[in-house]
Amino acid sequence: MQVSQLLEGQPAQPAATTASGSLHAAGELSLWLGQLRQRVAAVLAGYVRDRCAEYVRDVPGAGFVTDLLTEFVPGGKYVRSTFTYLGWLSGADESGAAVRAAASTELLHAFALLQDDVMDQSGTRRGRPAAHLRLAEWYRSQGLDGPAARFGESAAVLLADLCLVWAGQLLRDSGLPAAALARGWPRYDTLRGELAVGQFADLVNDARSQPSLDAVLDVTRRKSGNYTVRRPLELGAALAGCDEPTLAVLGAYGTLVGEAFQLRDDVLGVFGRPDVTGKPSGGDLRERKATSVVVLATELATPAQLAGLTRLSRREVVDEADILYWRQLITDTGAPARIEQMIGERVSTARGLLAGSGLPGFVRGALDDLAVLYTDRVR
Amino acid sequence: MQVSQLLEGQPAQPAATTASGSLHAAGELSLWLGQLRQRVAAVLAGYVRDRCAEYVRDVPGAGFVTDLLTEFVPGGKYVRSTFTYLGWLSGADESGAAVRAAASTELLHAFALLQDDVMDQSGTRRGRPAAHLRLAEWYRSQGLDGPAARFGESAAVLLADLCLVWAGQLLRDSGLPAAALARGWPRYDTLRGELAVGQFADLVNDARSQPSLDAVLDVTRRKSGNYTVRRPLELGAALAGCDEPTLAVLGAYGTLVGEAFQLRDDVLGVFGRPDVTGKPSGGDLRERKATSVVVLATELATPAQLAGLTRLSRREVVDEADILYWRQLITDTGAPARIEQMIGERVSTARGLLAGSGLPGFVRGALDDLAVLYTDRVR
Repeated sequence: MQVSQLLEGQPAQPAATTASGSLHAAGELSLWLGQLRQRVAAVLAGYVRDRCAEYVRDVPGAGFVTDLLTEFVPGGKYVRSTFTYLGWLSGADESGAAVRAAASTELLHAFALLQDDVMDQSGTRRGRPAAHLRLAEWYRSQGLDGPAARFGESAAVLLADLCLVWAGQLLRDSGLPAAALARGWPRYDTLRGELAVGQFADLVNDARSQPSLDAVLDVTRRKSGNYTVRRPLELGAALAGCDEPTLAVLGAYGTLVGEAFQLRDDVLGVFGRPDVTGKPSGGDLRERKATSVVVLATELATPAQLAGLTRLSRREVVDEADILYWRQLITDTGAPARIEQMIGERVSTARGLLAGSGLPGFVRGALDDLAVLYTDRVR
Repeated sequence: MQVSQLLEGQPAQPAATTASGSLHAAGELSLWLGQLRQRVAAVLAGYVRDRCAEYVRDVPGAGFVTDLLTEFVPGGKYVRSTFTYLGWLSGADESGAAVRAAASTELLHAFALLQDDVMDQSGTRRGRPAAHLRLAEWYRSQGLDGPAARFGESAAVLLADLCLVWAGQLLRDSGLPAAALARGWPRYDTLRGELAVGQFADLVNDARSQPSLDAVLDVTRRKSGNYTVRRPLELGAALAGCDEPTLAVLGAYGTLVGEAFQLRDDVLGVFGRPDVTGKPSGGDLRERKATSVVVLATELATPAQLAGLTRLSRREVVDEADILYWRQLITDTGAPARIEQMIGERVSTARGLLAGSGLPGFVRGALDDLAVLYTDRVR
């Protein structure tokens, strides 16, 4: 889902009630986000093209790999680079070097998506076949002799490795002063380490017959909450040399909004429209993911509802009618309503934190709007 | 294969004829290597334990993962850290910080092995089940509900990611001055990028019905030659601030010895004893790897020999008798003798380069001995 998609067709955002910042209308934030997005996209496109020319040039399949990466890496939502840059603006002025540093989080995200899609055996990403499937298709088209699916998965993991390496390289070569980078590296290391460990915990959770909601929320916090909002904000703020109180308020805001973001993603994974999510309808149900809404539904279900949910989750193949029925069962348990409430509580608390903070007005306004924008219902 | 294993049971090395260094007897080099190895091992053990305590602590399976990594990471041959440290000694004095920097290449190697074993579907590593199989076994032992083999592979890739991240972190936190690190990073990035791209090229090569020897040697150069000897030497030398002529001679030596090292590895992959290689006999034949000796055998084979080789390579299952016959056929083509000649030429040229270099005597002597030691027949 693109930021532009999120914004399109949305009702105008209400004026931020708790912030005294300058972004009281969605139009203004949208314009600013669009401009930042363009700057980050330009950095990524150039950087990936240059790195491919440097490393991938004379490998078999170089053209295909280069096209794939130059399309994939800049094709995301820019959530992490946006929060990193807002972290930066919490303690320093606009800077091209900081935009480059923020862009590095998108390369890190490309790494995570390429690998996760292999591990989750996801078929689609952003409305297209996932990268490992496209690599397998290329392999077949070359008439190569071997298992194409296996090749696609290995190749996608290797391209993920390149993105991980290049992410660190882009941050280091961003043009930020050495002292700024020295403040940023520990945050960056934490971000990367938590990401891998969070995905590990997720694999174990998916496998358990029945993880508890607490276990799922713990993974949510580790993997998505921290990784999507909190750590990027802290990284940007650390690079900018923000003081501890500023880092603390950004961290607390990031934890809350990151969780709300992931909870929204979980709701969309069950109820989202394919044209919004870029995935088939009921994608998380098809992949049998143990997300917050799925797990909460089983916790709240009556014995009859639980029997229905269990039957569906054990079915080898599910069709559209199954998905519709499955959704209805989940809705009937009351789980989606409870998740909406949890999202609302987190967003509201996060906005309250901003109101009492000493963050610059622009940042406060932007974070206030983004807390709503990134966690709002889009069906 | 451990350095100590390489050394055990070897005839005493001949006095280095071309070097005026101080390591004219294998015993002295062995002592020095053993001490360096102990220092690197201590760094790795402590670093991995600390990082596991920091990141992995409260994840399901934390104990198992910590045990696995603290055993696996320091369990290698220490080839790369040794060459990195010798690169350092080419331009600077003994230094604990440089030992830590050199140790980081072993974490990088752990990353490569963990991932490669998944991609190559290798069953054993260092005489034990490969990490992804041990992770799958742990998964089964927990009674978790899901495909254990798939979990093992995903988990091994994630632990590899952690090793890749921690490798960069250890180099950065090695204690070397910022100016030294600034000289080292571009070399380090090249090393990591080439490694991933080399493995990609290897996947495509393995798949082609019949890659040429030139194509195989090209991958050898990229993936192993550069990665094992040349880039580590250059990294160490760059960290130490060596001048261009020194970097050039180390680079040329590294390319030659790295190729010889990989060619030896290819010979051992077909003819090596399991207690030396830590793999089943004829491991590369069992895995149908298109290595230099395998490919050269098909290029040199008579029509009758080629028919035999093709028949074996298409057999679903091969037993010990097949391996023995397969080896004999390969020997009869003359390929192993030609590979021995190629190894000899490279080692001899590399030693000649050292003789004419201005490298410090100790480094010259060590590199001279290592060129022989790491590429010698061990069956």
